[in-house]
Order: sequence, then structure tokens, then C-alpha cells
Amino acid sequence: MTSALSAVDVIRVKRDGGELTDEQIDWVVDAYNAGAVAEEQMAALAMAILLNGMTARETGRWTRAIVRSGERLDLTEVDRPTVDKHSTGGVGDKITLPLAPLVATCGAAVPQLSGRGLGHTGGTLDKLESIPGWRARLTTAEIVAQLNSVGAVVCAPTEGLAPADRKLYALRDVTGTVESIPLIAGSIMGKKVAEGADGLVLDVKVGSGAFMKNEDRARELAATLVSIGESHGMAVSALLTDMSTPLGATVGNALEVAEAVDVLRGGGPADVVELTVALATEMLRLAGIDPTGATDPAAVLSSGAAYETWCRMIRAQGGDPEAPLPTAAHTRTVTAAEDGVLTAVDAYQVGMAAWRLGAGRARKEDAVRFGAGVRLLARPGDRVRRGDPLFELSTDTPEAFPGAVAELASAVRTGETAVEAHPLVLDVVRGG
Amino acid sequence: MTSALSAVDVIRVKRDGGELTDEQIDWVVDAYNAGAVAEEQMAALAMAILLNGMTARETGRWTRAIVRSGERLDLTEVDRPTVDKHSTGGVGDKITLPLAPLVATCGAAVPQLSGRGLGHTGGTLDKLESIPGWRARLTTAEIVAQLNSVGAVVCAPTEGLAPADRKLYALRDVTGTVESIPLIAGSIMGKKVAEGADGLVLDVKVGSGAFMKNEDRARELAATLVSIGESHGMAVSALLTDMSTPLGATVGNALEVAEAVDVLRGGGPADVVELTVALATEMLRLAGIDPTGATDPAAVLSSGAAYETWCRMIRAQGGDPEAPLPTAAHTRTVTAAEDGVLTAVDAYQVGMAAWRLGAGRARKEDAVRFGAGVRLLARPGDRVRRGDPLFELSTDTPEAFPGAVAELASAVRTGETAVEAHPLVLDVVRGG
Repeated sequence: MTSALSAVDVIRVKRDGGELTDEQIDWVVDAYNAGAVAEEQMAALAMAILLNGMTARETGRWTRAIVRSGERLDLTEVDRPTVDKHSTGGVGDKITLPLAPLVATCGAAVPQLSGRGLGHTGGTLDKLESIPGWRARLTTAEIVAQLNSVGAVVCAPTEGLAPADRKLYALRDVTGTVESIPLIAGSIMGKKVAEGADGLVLDVKVGSGAFMKNEDRARELAATLVSIGESHGMAVSALLTDMSTPLGATVGNALEVAEAVDVLRGGGPADVVELTVALATEMLRLAGIDPTGATDPAAVLSSGAAYETWCRMIRAQGGDPEAPLPTAAHTRTVTAAEDGVLTAVDAYQVGMAAWRLGAGRARKEDAVRFGAGVRLLARPGDRVRRGDPLFELSTDTPEAFPGAVAELASAVRTGETAVEAHPLVLDVVRGG
Repeated sequence: MTSALSAVDVIRVKRDGGELTDEQIDWVVDAYNAGAVAEEQMAALAMAILLNGMTARETGRWTRAIVRSGERLDLTEVDRPTVDKHSTGGVGDKITLPLAPLVATCGAAVPQLSGRGLGHTGGTLDKLESIPGWRARLTTAEIVAQLNSVGAVVCAPTEGLAPADRKLYALRDVTGTVESIPLIAGSIMGKKVAEGADGLVLDVKVGSGAFMKNEDRARELAATLVSIGESHGMAVSALLTDMSTPLGATVGNALEVAEAVDVLRGGGPADVVELTVALATEMLRLAGIDPTGATDPAAVLSSGAAYETWCRMIRAQGGDPEAPLPTAAHTRTVTAAEDGVLTAVDAYQVGMAAWRLGAGRARKEDAVRFGAGVRLLARPGDRVRRGDPLFELSTDTPEAFPGAVAELASAVRTGETAVEAHPLVLDVVRGG
């Protein structure tokens, strides 16, 4: 039987609402990775999976097949417990930047293989590349050496990790098949299992600026991720966190690096500090390190000790942590249209405004502008008067201002009185 | 906005259960035809359409977009009413061969643009190509001239007709998206509207040997086809006909041509005669020709007058209607395993046996063997004894016999007493 015929057989099972066998899943992922199942066949299967779902068994096996499409990062030479963090992506989410050096300072090793931004969400690598000299590509030997010397690495995934996921991710992006919980879970956990850390904390975002707009779906994704991780022998937890408002006061690559440095020096916005400490506490718990006393992440952060680790981490990858960061050529201020209390600053629209200003990319091939972005001058709960500054916009392409200003005009809602603030950490999902 | 982003927007609407606008349908079919929407994007959309359906308005507009992807055959120079027939495909379905010359003999012009077989169903062009010298490719001018001189043409579609359907059909074949009523209807009617006949009779098959195994789905398809045809200003009817048993006594290209010639000479199997006359009657009705008296198709058929038209039709396309037909090098007889009355001879399995013997193709690129096939020596209702011949198999590749014999062993069911015969024509669906 030809591979085309077999691919059709697998597609038909899922199309008709059936369960794929382990053999079918292994075969289709392998054959797709090898090019024997065509892009259009995987696109049809992905749509059938999105619409008809996968069971926990199928999702687990799918993830295993993605892991096995490549090599696993060998971290056995690392001399301390390894623990990783993954965020499902949000607006202003620079948490990895203070978090990795903070957790390393407390005694764990943090191998944080990260991605680039696409659409309205930013990417950690794009942010770090705004630091002069910093490079994202490391070999496995360099990763292991840096984990032993510094305790933290933030870098690009090595080529051999989960190649099937790279193909599949690019395909889902152009075929409207991103928003499937089993496929999202397989993609995240396929990479994270291949990256070989002992522990993993997931930051599952929910709200307008997240891929999951709905709390029930986010909770389902969190439970799926934790269950897959456990079945692969990892210690895994998930925090469900709010992404209806941007995190911190900056959205844009260099702007966010500067804010992360403020946090590492004991300052910075309260929400960024709160989430950094919450994730660090959970990571230390999974690594078997007591998050109190000398390794209390809140205390370590405010002491500035994590900033020293940050500087060593950036230098180890060729960057100069003291060098001035890129700035944009043009700025503009957006002011309040009426008096009142800010009741919402919509994360999605702020993310889109930053994207229009040049902070993000529409296609993988595009370059980001490091200095471009949005600074939030007021947050929900703040009382403002007509004409007060709400946002400062930065761009190298001033023709982008009108689009960004329009995006932000409808991002802000004003009321008579303050509304109760959303909690930032909505829940913690831990395994059985 | 790039085409990739727009394709994703269209896919998402259908994925999320929405209705596509006329503009979205026109754009996506045009852009796919032009190569601006990628195969994987159309595959994802086709799966979403298969699973979430299309409304009558969407299906009609989709068909219109397929028609408009190419040219329409210009039949204005044909000097009599034009009427066409389309079968959804079955086993032993050689009806076009006697039908086209019969209807032409009664006074209508029959432009029958046909296809090739794929899988277990045969194709009319493959059958006719078993006649030495006959050629399937004609220009539009040749089609019009032959309709005026002979009254009937059976040929391949000209290149410019419904090119979007050709691309889409090939894509659906490899992506498990064939079995969607809106896509099937769009494909059939896209071609048939482009072929430009005034009237069209559809033979919608139902049963094991048909694409529609289920009568409700076949009825839904028939109603959809009739409705689309009417909205394009055609006179359309659909016959719902049984395809649980092969039509006639032969399955295979040259074998079926010989049987068609028997029917044209006033003989042949009763079921082939019955269906030919039923379809001819409906076609004449749509062409405004009285199907009684001198133009009663049953009388014309038994008179042998249609055979004269057949000979002229074959000669006009370079064929020699008197030449011996190809035969296969090897034959084998399959006999009854037990005494009893045949209660079923499964059309699908007989079609698969003929396919294994070389009568059909697994891929579009494959060649068919003209002499290969299956001759039915007994039919449902016949009383047989153990050892009586049931099938005669012909092939050029005797290594195919065991697979074909195994297929046929389970194709036959025997009982104690005869069961009531299925009616051949189950229903006629006519427009409002």
C-alpha cells in the first residue's frame, strides 16, 4: 500500500470520529517528518483533530511521536536539578528574563529553550537579541557548560529537537489549525520533553491577550499538559494566569528587557514581580529546593543577587548587559479621551498596537524592530483625567502611528468607579 | 493583507461552524485555482467543509466559482436541444454507451464529457478506449460538429473547463475529503454547468458499489444537485438507482463495450436495458421530445436503430466499431461453494475483483488493461448448485487471480429461498 493511501486511511479514522491507534499515530508523525505524508494530508488530519479531538491516550502518543522525531537534549552532565518554564504566550510577558537567573541564583539549573514572536505576542529570543552582541544559537555542549557555570541558559532550540513539531507548527499556522488543545499540547510538550529538564512549570495564559480566551479551555489545556509531562516522567505543574491586561508597563523588545532589568535590581512593576516570584517558587518546589530562607525567591530578587546571575548569563552568550539598549526614532503619546477610572486595558489590542509599531512580525521571515513598542503610563484602577497620558508609543516607522493609535483608542475602557482587580494567578494545576 | 492570512480567515469561519460569504467563496476558489491559496490550506478548508457542511447558498456559490474558474463550452451552434447525463459512478455502469446514441437517435444532442475510472468504479473513457482507434480528446469545434452530424459525443472534457475542480478533485482524493455532499455536488455540477447542455439527468447511485452507501445521503445529494442545476438555469432531474449489485453481466472495459453493443442491437441484460430506457425517457422529457411513438426509446433500442448511431459516433472519433475488442490472456472460473439461491452479489467486491485483475487503476497515472474483468454467470435470484460457475475472471496478470478470487468468495451470499429483488430505479427527484 502506498503512503498516500495509508495517510488517507488515518485521516478517515479521525474524520469519522474514531480513535487513532498507537501504530497509526507513530506512522503518520514519522512519515510526515520524513516527507512521505504530504503537507496537504497533514493539514486535513490537523483539521479533523481540531474538530473531532483526541483522547488523552492519543494526545500522549502523539507527543511521544514528536519527541521521537528527533534527539533529546542530554542534560545528564548538569550538576544540579534542572527545571524549565514555558508560557503559552502573552502581551508584555518578559517573565523568563528575570525568572531564569532568579531560579539559577536559588540553586537550580534553568535550560530555557525559547521561541520567537509571531502575531500579537512577543518572543523571548527577540527580546534578548535587542542586547548588543547577544546570540541565541548555542550547541548542546555550550548549553551544558553554561548550566554548570551560570545555572541559566535562554537560547534557541538546537536543530535536532522535535523536528516534526517545527514542520507541523509552520503548517498549523497557515491552515487555521492552531487552536486545537491536543495539537497545542503535543507541540509544547513534544519540545519540552525533548529538552530534557527534570521539572517544568507551565504558565497557561487566559484572557484577551492569550491564545486561550476562555478559562475552561485554558484549564483543560493545563490539565492535558501536566498529564502528558507526568507520563513522560517529568515533575510538572501549571499556573493559570490572567492575560486580559498586558504584563508590566512595557510591550516591545528592548523596552521589556529594560523592565526585566529593573525587576532584577529589586524594582519594576508589581505584577511582573508577583508572577516571577510565583513561578520561581513553583520551579524550586519541583527541583526539590526549599523556597524559603536563603532561597526565598522574593528575597533573592529584592536583594539584587539575581541581577549578577543575569549579567553572567548575558555575557556567556556574547551580550553586554551594561550596553545601552536600542531606542526607536519616533515617539508619540496617547492621552485619555475622558475623565474616569480605567476599568480595562485590553492586552490583545495593546499587543496589536506594538506589532503595528514594529515590535512583532507578521511572517516568520520578518525582522522585528528592537526599539519599537508601547509603554503603559496608566493601568486598570488608575484614575485619569481627559488629556492625561495613557500610552507612549515608539517606532522607527511613523506611518504606523495612526493604526496603533486607533488600536489603543478602543483598548481602554473607563468607568465611574474602580472595579475589583483580577487576581494575576488564577489557579495552580498539579499532577496526581 | 497577504493571501496566507486571508486563507486562514476563510478556513476559520468554516472551522468554527460559520457561513462563508459569497466574496469569501469566490476569493478562495479563484486564489486556489491561481495557486495563491496553497494545497494545504485548501485541504484544511475541505476537511472543515466536510465536517461542518455548507448551506444551499454556499454550495451554489461554490459551484458557480468552479464554473467561473474556466470557460463554458459554447453549444449555441448545435441545431437541436442538448441534454447530458451524469452517473455518480458504479460497478458495471456502461449505461452511457447505449444511452448517448439512443437519445441522439430520438432527436436530442448528447454532449457527454466523461471521466476515467479510479478505484473500484470504471470510467467511460477507459471503456471506449478499448475500441481500436477511438480517441477521447476532441476540440470544441469537433464536439459541436459531431453533435450536428451524429447527435452524440462521448469525449474527455476540454482543458479549459472548470480547472479549479480538476485541482480540487486531485487534492480531495489524497486528503480523505471526497465524501462531502457539498464538495461532491460542487464538483459534479461545476463541470456539468461548464459543459453547457440545456438539460441534465443525474443517475445517483446508492448501495455497496456506489460512493453513497446510504439512501438518505444519496437522496440529499440528488436534491442538492437538482437545486444547483436549476439555479444555473438548467433543466435537471435525478434518478436514484440501486448499486448493491453490479449492472449487467460484465465488469471491465472491453467486456462492457461488448455488452453495450448487445443492448444497442436489441439484446443484452434486462437491467442494463431497463436503466438505459429509464434515463433516455427522462432525458427526452427534459429536451422537450415526446418519449412515445417514433421516439419511444424502448422501441428505438429494440429496433437496432441506435446501433447505427453508435457506429457513426465511434467512427467520428477514429474508432472501428466492427473491429475485434481486446481480450485478456488468462481466464479462470469461480464456482459456487454451496447449493442455494443467490441472495446477493456485492457490487463493491466485484468492482474490487475487476480492479485487482487490471480493469481499473490505483493511481491516475496507471494504465488499465482493456481485456481484464469479471463476467457474472449468475445473478441474485438464480438457483445454483455447488460447483456451478458463478464468475469468469479475465486478466493479463495471472498472479492477480488469488486476490480477485478471495474478493469474490465473500461477494456472494446464498440462501434457502429467493429474496425479493431490489427495484433498480428507486426514485426520481425533479426540481420545483
